[in-house]
Amino acid sequence: MKTLNDYIERLNKLNFKDMYNNDFLLTWEKSDDELEALFTVADALRFMRENNISTKVFESGLGVSLFRDNSTRTRFSFTSACNLLGLEVQDLDEGKSQVAHGETVRETANMISFMADIIGIRDDMYIGKGNAYMREVSEAVKQGNKDGILEQRPTLVNLQCDIDHPTQSMADMLHIIHEFGGIENLKGKKIAMSWAYSPSYGKPLSVPQGIVGLMTRMGMDVVLAHPEGYEIMADVEEVAKANAVKSGGSFTKTNSMAEAFRDADIVYPKSWAPFVAMEKRTELYGNGDSDGIKALEKELLAQNAEHKDWACTEEMMKLTKAGKATYMHCLPADITGVSCEEGEVDASVFDRYRIPLYKQASYKPYVIAAMIFLSKFENPQATLSTLEKAAKQRKFD
Amino acid sequence: MKTLNDYIERLNKLNFKDMYNNDFLLTWEKSDDELEALFTVADALRFMRENNISTKVFESGLGVSLFRDNSTRTRFSFTSACNLLGLEVQDLDEGKSQVAHGETVRETANMISFMADIIGIRDDMYIGKGNAYMREVSEAVKQGNKDGILEQRPTLVNLQCDIDHPTQSMADMLHIIHEFGGIENLKGKKIAMSWAYSPSYGKPLSVPQGIVGLMTRMGMDVVLAHPEGYEIMADVEEVAKANAVKSGGSFTKTNSMAEAFRDADIVYPKSWAPFVAMEKRTELYGNGDSDGIKALEKELLAQNAEHKDWACTEEMMKLTKAGKATYMHCLPADITGVSCEEGEVDASVFDRYRIPLYKQASYKPYVIAAMIFLSKFENPQATLSTLEKAAKQRKFD
Amino acid sequence: MKTLNDYIERLNKLNFKDMYNNDFLLTWEKSDDELEALFTVADALRFMRENNISTKVFESGLGVSLFRDNSTRTRFSFTSACNLLGLEVQDLDEGKSQVAHGETVRETANMISFMADIIGIRDDMYIGKGNAYMREVSEAVKQGNKDGILEQRPTLVNLQCDIDHPTQSMADMLHIIHEFGGIENLKGKKIAMSWAYSPSYGKPLSVPQGIVGLMTRMGMDVVLAHPEGYEIMADVEEVAKANAVKSGGSFTKTNSMAEAFRDADIVYPKSWAPFVAMEKRTELYGNGDSDGIKALEKELLAQNAEHKDWACTEEMMKLTKAGKATYMHCLPADITGVSCEEGEVDASVFDRYRIPLYKQASYKPYVIAAMIFLSKFENPQATLSTLEKAAKQRKFD
Repeated sequence: MKTLNDYIERLNKLNFKDMYNNDFLLTWEKSDDELEALFTVADALRFMRENNISTKVFESGLGVSLFRDNSTRTRFSFTSACNLLGLEVQDLDEGKSQVAHGETVRETANMISFMADIIGIRDDMYIGKGNAYMREVSEAVKQGNKDGILEQRPTLVNLQCDIDHPTQSMADMLHIIHEFGGIENLKGKKIAMSWAYSPSYGKPLSVPQGIVGLMTRMGMDVVLAHPEGYEIMADVEEVAKANAVKSGGSFTKTNSMAEAFRDADIVYPKSWAPFVAMEKRTELYGNGDSDGIKALEKELLAQNAEHKDWACTEEMMKLTKAGKATYMHCLPADITGVSCEEGEVDASVFDRYRIPLYKQASYKPYVIAAMIFLSKFENPQATLSTLEKAAKQRKFD
Repeated sequence: MKTLNDYIERLNKLNFKDMYNNDFLLTWEKSDDELEALFTVADALRFMRENNISTKVFESGLGVSLFRDNSTRTRFSFTSACNLLGLEVQDLDEGKSQVAHGETVRETANMISFMADIIGIRDDMYIGKGNAYMREVSEAVKQGNKDGILEQRPTLVNLQCDIDHPTQSMADMLHIIHEFGGIENLKGKKIAMSWAYSPSYGKPLSVPQGIVGLMTRMGMDVVLAHPEGYEIMADVEEVAKANAVKSGGSFTKTNSMAEAFRDADIVYPKSWAPFVAMEKRTELYGNGDSDGIKALEKELLAQNAEHKDWACTEEMMKLTKAGKATYMHCLPADITGVSCEEGEVDASVFDRYRIPLYKQASYKPYVIAAMIFLSKFENPQATLSTLEKAAKQRKFD
Repeated sequence: MKTLNDYIERLNKLNFKDMYNNDFLLTWEKSDDELEALFTVADALRFMRENNISTKVFESGLGVSLFRDNSTRTRFSFTSACNLLGLEVQDLDEGKSQVAHGETVRETANMISFMADIIGIRDDMYIGKGNAYMREVSEAVKQGNKDGILEQRPTLVNLQCDIDHPTQSMADMLHIIHEFGGIENLKGKKIAMSWAYSPSYGKPLSVPQGIVGLMTRMGMDVVLAHPEGYEIMADVEEVAKANAVKSGGSFTKTNSMAEAFRDADIVYPKSWAPFVAMEKRTELYGNGDSDGIKALEKELLAQNAEHKDWACTEEMMKLTKAGKATYMHCLPADITGVSCEEGEVDASVFDRYRIPLYKQASYKPYVIAAMIFLSKFENPQATLSTLEKAAKQRKFD
């Protein structure tokens, strides 16, 4: 049986000192050791919660959240993670706040951070904007801390941007680490990150980008499949290529879903919008060109409709390794005959994988908590050990 | 003087083991012992708070709230109850969330529950929907816990549905238990649950239904009074009848407010919409028939206006036992000359009863906290005792 | 080096017993000792947080917030303060709540307060309303506590009203106390509270009123400068005059910004609307006269535009003491060429003072926390001492 010490010993072998007092914005800015430290801390926190050991490391302090888009799951994951560690979430609602009235990012970032330990931002709508905004906020509060305005440096967690979706991809990977019995067992496994048809428009690119940017780190054979015209951000493809070379895996592309699925150990079929279309949309929004936006939307829906055969059907699943690949999705999925007429996945496939899919999602709060933990504690091994010794119960027994 | 041990000893005599790890949806699904256990725990928690003993039994954990209708009082009661026990409220705002976009209940229920100990739902608008929705959510998270998706089973508290309003009726009863000096003193008391005129439309049926469904449990003489056409749900009348038989009380109906008030120990005059009209409205909403809804509203307001004599006037109060019945209301009341021209109650009557009315409301947070407590702790006597021994102050002294 | 005992000893010399179980509505209702006690507790709480000592004095309890206007900074300050002491914020959102449906203030105030220790209200829009509303709420919950409805008396913190903005002015003063090396060093210093041009309309009067009502307490030479027609509330001017006489300072008025700035140690240039115009607007809103409101707005913007020379330019700053007066602002400022074409302050002036401006803002959460602390603890010295001895860390070390 696992003990907390197993996690601590694993951490002792890793170098992750740069995570302390630092942001988590893109997985490819982190070393392999740092990613492994994060998985280890996430597992340790889960182990402690399951064993009713309190992991409340803050007596007070705020976790500021800023969602530029509607969100249920990410909101609950962030709140759960903050709550698990003792931080209270205060939402910066732009609709309600003066941010909308032209305040500079620098000023607002400082004004909300006097007692903030963490800032979580989701800003995935506009190409070239989300990640840039996060860095602006990060720079502002880092400087504010240096200038003696802020007593602590609030560190940032990227809850989804235009480039990456690290809390999703890390949760996804932690799930398959457990499914395959260890990070070392991912080596040589084939994963198909495939486009799939959806009757809706403009789904974010951050999921496929996050997946190919992360899964190529582990020596996996990563195949990115999509119809022509559905290219993702070129920079991220370069990241994936370089990762594959370094990790001894591979990164290939195809315009055939079937080819991607063939003998795959894992499939991740999901709709997204073409990168160039999202760039165009960003520009149209910038110009306030609502006619242009409507025209683009119509065009994209028509383009999508040409590829209704890109669906994770039972037939498609039969192509995978022993017909039994792990099916993944970030949820919610467009399920044919359930949430839409024709969608990303057959209802029977989805139903068969429902339990592991929900488990996949269950890692996200722990991944976020681990991001917070590693950015706030210089010696997390000692902190975990202190928590174990304190043996405070999460819930009275 | 009372001590915590008095409450513990009372609990020792009761059988309420099925409340553990279980929902609280309808009072008539609970045994007499279970209801008494709930009153006892509510009183014990209040006793502890009044004596500045912390009742924080959770170091972390979420209380998820879902309000399908605007709410101040219930929202504050739920937050107060969660906060008292150490849970943080996270609101599932359907307006903001993806629930509105066609997600299945099962999926959302699991996605928000990874660290949720309690889910409180208010859904009273549509006949046949609210309670059914709660059961769907309950089933989903129960299964999620069995399937290993959720580490704990989040239990549900019905914060008002189309059938019952248990947090209201239980708080109301706890109030009269204290007013009359003990649960045993309610036996043989006459309570008039009476319709009253309001210039507004479509007030929920859950209050009168909850009251007749609960008060008939205690050997009281429960009279349900309303003008013809203002029938409540037939199923609940059946529940009330059966309760009365079992408890040695009575359940009668009348179309005369005066008859109901005559010699009553307690009166509860309150407006509601006819059950059949609410069924019709549910159907109209389902069909998106906004003209039909407007027509129905007009019709119901006209129907209401025929019964302006159904008001809790000074004259009507004189009919009650010694002219001094306990006047109850779930608040806010439509007060004649204050909140409307003609309403449910005379201003002078309301004013005379203001303090006990506000006290009546003050039980709700404790009733909700007791629902949470009993669903989460297998041996609440031991938990209360541990809290007393820990003697942590709620507020530094 | 400072120790916590230094703050405690300072408190020992002051008489502030009336702050216990009392509201904080207007600074001029408080004695000099009480203000000094508040500054001392604010500094002590900051000292403790900086030294990682938990100041969590509540295990449970709510801080109710009611914002009648959009707010980011005040919202975050209030949440930070509550969180620092262990209270959870529950917002009373009038848009969502039944307050909007005609409930009486008295009833709502009690209904939300069963477990509320503090109520923070921002209500600065309408002349004659905000402060009056706060007093109504205060009276209601005080009475509710007396009547046995509320177990504790929730005390009020004025987060900005039509008359005063005590959390702002107290934070501002705490800032200059630190800038000038002690409260005693403020004596004889000249501060210019000056109107400045802004292209926006209807900025609240509570800041200039709060500043002249407070700064005249400390023996400072307070100059209120504005163009003709931009008078503040006459009652507050009377307060300022009386304060100046008593404190040995002065309170003068001028219609020349340059005169106010000449040899000033501190300048506070900021736009506001004329009091008479705000009175008129309040009446127009009361009558629902939207045409009248539009006409008034147009008129006021035109009036503003006649005074574009009222700007805190580099030239203007040169007039101040050695050209180096402390520049203050409650933020956000209208910065010429940054947030607007022509505004309150030159970008170069603002930039030079950015760090101290942000520091000025950083005192607000501590000032609010001190208001809560002093209203809730009869012997704050003992409470601070107990916290120090408990030596619980705010954040695990």
